[in-house]
This record gives sequence, C-alpha cells and structure tokens, in this order.
Amino acid sequence: MRGSLVIAGLGPGSEDMVTPQVQAALDRATDIIGYIPYVARIAPRDGLTLHPTDNRVELERAQHALELADQGARVVVVSSGDPGVFAMASAVFEALENHPKPEKTDIRVLPGITAMLAAAAAAGAPLGHDFCAINLSDNLKPWNLIDHRLRMAARGDFAMAFYNPRSKSRPEGFEKTLQILREECGPDHLITFARAVSTPDQVLRTVTLAEATPDMADMRTVVIVGNAATKRVGPYVYTPRSAP
Amino acid sequence: MRGSLVIAGLGPGSEDMVTPQVQAALDRATDIIGYIPYVARIAPRDGLTLHPTDNRVELERAQHALELADQGARVVVVSSGDPGVFAMASAVFEALENHPKPEKTDIRVLPGITAMLAAAAAAGAPLGHDFCAINLSDNLKPWNLIDHRLRMAARGDFAMAFYNPRSKSRPEGFEKTLQILREECGPDHLITFARAVSTPDQVLRTVTLAEATPDMADMRTVVIVGNAATKRVGPYVYTPRSAP
Repeated sequence: MRGSLVIAGLGPGSEDMVTPQVQAALDRATDIIGYIPYVARIAPRDGLTLHPTDNRVELERAQHALELADQGARVVVVSSGDPGVFAMASAVFEALENHPKPEKTDIRVLPGITAMLAAAAAAGAPLGHDFCAINLSDNLKPWNLIDHRLRMAARGDFAMAFYNPRSKSRPEGFEKTLQILREECGPDHLITFARAVSTPDQVLRTVTLAEATPDMADMRTVVIVGNAATKRVGPYVYTPRSAP
Repeated sequence: MRGSLVIAGLGPGSEDMVTPQVQAALDRATDIIGYIPYVARIAPRDGLTLHPTDNRVELERAQHALELADQGARVVVVSSGDPGVFAMASAVFEALENHPKPEKTDIRVLPGITAMLAAAAAAGAPLGHDFCAINLSDNLKPWNLIDHRLRMAARGDFAMAFYNPRSKSRPEGFEKTLQILREECGPDHLITFARAVSTPDQVLRTVTLAEATPDMADMRTVVIVGNAATKRVGPYVYTPRSAP
C-alpha cells in the first residue's frame, strides 16, 4: 500500500459532533468513499474526488478503497456514527482478507459518536448501566440468532440499543422484537425511539413496552430499551448506576 | 434552575477526539466539576472556577453541580469518554430525584468517544457485530449479577467490552471473569487489552482466552472479547458483519 486508508466516523449527523481528528483526515484526503448521504456531508474542493455509492455494496466499496490506497491515494471511507459499530470498518477488514499483503497496509479507524450514544444523551442516560447493542437487520444473520440474542440480553437484564430496527423490506422483524421483549421483560420496561438524532428532524419518544407499536420505528430510528430499573425523572430517562 | 448544567464527554484522552460541541460548552462554562484527572485536562481562564474532586463521590459531585446551576452558574460536569457510559450522567439524574423541580431544569448530556469504541478502533473492528458493554466493578452491584451477565452475553455469542476490569482493591474479579469466559466460550476467543487508549501511553495486546492472565488488565485498561467469529487479518482484529 503506497497510500493510506482511514475509516472515519462522521457522528450521527450534527457537524459539531465530528471530532477534530476526523476533520483533519477529511482535510488531507484525496479520495472519499461512502454511502451517498454520508459523502454528501463532505464539501467538494480541488484535489478531492468524491465516490458516493449506494448501500448494500459495502464489500465492493471496501475493495475500491483498498485499490485506491494501493495506488497511492489518501483514502477516507466515511461512515455515519462510529465506523466500528454496524458500519464500514468490518467490511474493510473483510475485504483485506483478499489483499496480497495485509500486514503492509496503513489502515486507521477513527472513532465517531455512534447513534445509540447520541440518542442516549438526548434522552438522559438510559445506557448508564450494562447494555447490549444489537443490529436488528437480518440481511447478514438469521432471524433465529436475533431472537436468541434478544432473549439472552433480556435474561441478563441488560439495557439494549437497536440499530436498523425496521425497513420497508422487513416490516415484521420489529414487531417480533417487541413481542419477544414483552415475553421476556414484561410490559413495564421503558423504550425510547430516537429518530434522526442530532439533526433538525430529531424526535424522541419514550413509552412502555406495553404501549410500543412497530410503526414507532423506521430506518432512521435508534431504539433504546431500559433494564428493569430504568426510570424517568422530570423529562429525562436514565438507568441507575447500581443494581440490587 | 436559573443557570444550566451540561454533562460532557471528553473522550478517552486525546484532545483531537473532543467534539466541537463539547469544546464550545467548556468555553462557555463558569464552573467545571469532575474527577481530578479529568478536570486537569481543562485550561484555567478568567471567569472559570474548576472544582476537581476525588473519585467515589459521584453523587455529592452531582448534587454540587445541581446547586451551582440552581444559583445561576453555567456548569459543565466532565467525564472521560462518554458521560452516559459508566460515568457521570446517571449520577446527575440520580441526584435530580431529590430536586424540588426536576422538570424545570436545563440539563444537557453531550456525548463523547467512549473508551471501548476508541479501543476497538485502535485494534481494528472487534465490535463490528452485536456486542455488550459490562462494568466489571462490583462497587455498585453484586458479583453474582456480573457472573450472570457474563454467561448470558457468552451464550448469546455477543462480543463484549469490559470497563473497570481490575483494581487493587478487587484483584480477584477479573480472574473469575476469565474463568467464566473460558467455561462459556472455550479457549480460542480473541481478547484485546487496550491500555490508556489514545494517549502517548497506549498499549494494545491481543491474545486468546487460553493465553490471557489477570495481570494483563488494570484500571486504565478496556478489555474487548471477540465473539466466536472474531479473527485477525494482518495486524488488525475484527468481527465479521455476518453470522451463520
């Protein structure tokens, strides 16, 4: 690899959550690669080529990034949120498996504010005790594994954060998720739907599992489920630090 | 509350991981409150009072922050990493339970780069699939709950990140953690010890569970355990996006 490859997290949407480290990498880049709406956040300038691509082509995108870096480019692959949480970092390392000299590459992952932590901050502190992060999309894993993980997380009384809770192509998954949670946790756990966190479109809504309906989530929503102790104080939702 | 209260995450240590949003809050503050080493990261200036306090006084610190904000101060409570992940945000909301008008307060939580995500980025992408975050300190919860959560997380084949793995006052907890993980996961899962992430003292070490020993962790270490599929490629550790 004659150039370099940075995988950078742009945070959930607000420009004032982009770290200076990520901004510096963007400013030095010759090529920026990523999903169309994320690349659209980067201002064009001389000497910079933007490579926006559609979603569901993560491996091809990662392969392209490696090729450009091998040719000498300073490549930045951009992800929303944190690149290591259900985003492009794993895809780049998967593509690296086919690289002739993975040990000779210059790859750096720069963390970002991931959606669940921005959502938790906007709500209060619902992830203030032990928690799990689960991707509810069954594009890359079977539904029965999601079902099993939901039950293990519930039986451990973990708070939970869900990414990709619902899409048009699989509307039934989130309905099943709510059913599993009611079976395992009962009706009273708090559940927060955080849509378009940190953007002007941000909407937060907290209800109980009994009150939750599948249409409260879409693909721009991060969902946070409290543990048995999660509660409200004033307009905030938080999980106490201690457990009995 | 006549003033305001911000609970801000300073990230894991490197100043170039402090978000502009957090920096702006620090620049506007009249009072900064927090654990001594975190307050030490803030430059003194006219009009700013620094209130460093020892650890294990989180509730008193939160109470003090609320009092100052009630009196009209622009208070920032600083946490390392993200304030919502095993840090000060939950303590402030716990203290708010005793406030006469919690609904009339102006409290904002500003997320930061939490240690596990900085550690994961430094290692590659070991948290690239479903994962759990567990605080191994038994100061605020019984050990049998930690034991139970470790087993539920392992049986769900979650990757795991551990905060506060080991202290001088409880050296045996992390040894028990390693025993539980070997029982539940076998000897081959990868485990990464990330010490002082993002600082000049950063050290990363990845071994198998069979090779791991308790002395590999201390209180400045975040520990990441891979799931069954977590692997190495070149010098990096990552968890594939897909699961069978």
